Amino acid sequence: MIGTIKEASMIDEIAVQQVMARYVRATDRRDGTVLAELFEEVGAVEIFHRLDGTETPLGMLEGRPAIAMAVATMMKPHGTTDWSHHTTFDPIVAIEEQEASLDVQFIVYAVEGAPTPAGGWGAEHQGAQGTIRPIEAGYYRAKLRKRDGQWRFERLAIHHDMPFAVPNVN
Amino acid sequence: MIGTIKEASMIDEIAVQQVMARYVRATDRRDGTVLAELFEEVGAVEIFHRLDGTETPLGMLEGRPAIAMAVATMMKPHGTTDWSHHTTFDPIVAIEEQEASLDVQFIVYAVEGAPTPAGGWGAEHQGAQGTIRPIEAGYYRAKLRKRDGQWRFERLAIHHDMPFAVPNVN
Amino acid sequence: MIGTIKEASMIDEIAVQQVMARYVRATDRRDGTVLAELFEEVGAVEIFHRLDGTETPLGMLEGRPAIAMAVATMMKPHGTTDWSHHTTFDPIVAIEEQEASLDVQFIVYAVEGAPTPAGGWGAEHQGAQGTIRPIEAGYYRAKLRKRDGQWRFERLAIHHDMPFAVPNVN
Repeated sequence: MIGTIKEASMIDEIAVQQVMARYVRATDRRDGTVLAELFEEVGAVEIFHRLDGTETPLGMLEGRPAIAMAVATMMKPHGTTDWSHHTTFDPIVAIEEQEASLDVQFIVYAVEGAPTPAGGWGAEHQGAQGTIRPIEAGYYRAKLRKRDGQWRFERLAIHHDMPFAVPNVN
Repeated sequence: MIGTIKEASMIDEIAVQQVMARYVRATDRRDGTVLAELFEEVGAVEIFHRLDGTETPLGMLEGRPAIAMAVATMMKPHGTTDWSHHTTFDPIVAIEEQEASLDVQFIVYAVEGAPTPAGGWGAEHQGAQGTIRPIEAGYYRAKLRKRDGQWRFERLAIHHDMPFAVPNVN
Repeated sequence: MIGTIKEASMIDEIAVQQVMARYVRATDRRDGTVLAELFEEVGAVEIFHRLDGTETPLGMLEGRPAIAMAVATMMKPHGTTDWSHHTTFDPIVAIEEQEASLDVQFIVYAVEGAPTPAGGWGAEHQGAQGTIRPIEAGYYRAKLRKRDGQWRFERLAIHHDMPFAVPNVN
């Protein structure tokens, strides 16, 4: 059902937010093909991290094939019991004719469900079993363009609050 | 003030999101009556959890009385100092005349405020005192219907990421 | 780009949400001047905390200068590697001509990025390095007024779920 949404008739501000909502769904499903389709053919992703307090470029992906491949190669696949949620908050959207800017806060959660114990759950266990941990935070800042009634990312900048480990190869 | 909002004149996508916003408020207040009113009379809630990687039915509630009673009997009441926040993110809404679909991510937080120490707070304490823990995560997927200008849930599916303990009765 | 958004032409419900989105951005940047501009000149902030289960007034700020000063004096400045995210969820907005009410849930996260180790990151480190902790939660409940096409807070009530330590001066 989600795949058939007619965003063409939507309020632009809402349609733009839903591009981001589909982006986080595709990320959590590790679906690079669907994710790349949310970008213009020449769309780009720029990734920054904050290294000892200084915003520093971490990576750059240009074009749909590069974006789709990055999801497959740079993101750890989910195992049987784990999942992730890329969540966004407090969108600031500006529309100017066929162009839009979008600024959201994000937090990424790692979810790890507990396996069923060999003898079943004891009476001391109640409710959801497992852990949910916030592992990344920052801002997504995007420019989008509307073509044929469909908004897509021209450029998405991912600004991480924290540094990413780039292992020392020595 | 919240009770008198005229959603009839709202953009449908926003009105649908606000049904969910009222649902999470009613859940956190353990107000089954208000929560049940957000559903059609024959509305239903279906609950799924992920058991060793497989989505598995956990429960089904049909009709307002069953939904209202579940809030009273299945949800742990809040104590003096605790609270919960059912939070939702990244809505994907689709409207088709008098029907709507809504897909949101959710995380539930358990908040436990600290009691005031016998001798008052020492100088080593600053800011908010207590703990906030994410305890549940997943997706809400809903179908809604508009009648007399009011959107209500026809069906709400709660998809938990993690397994729920069903204690072994042996 | 964010500074030049023309909210005057926006759907009111979205424009009101964006005032809150700008408020949390200004809070996290500790920018009292920008934050105070989101209020009417005679706007006010009321802060409540929950002390052993009882909602209790914690503070009151009236007028832009007091609000701007509070950001500078009451909020801990960020260090080199830390950051915060005031995040809001599930807005319930009601518009009545030039007045609006807004009710959102909030959670505040403290982010602490790890400094780069002297010898660089070892192979055992992957992904984002640091911690993200939820430290405050509650509800923002606001009244806003539209003047010359611009929505601003008349009054913002901050309802914390947890008690704030007020150190014993004895």
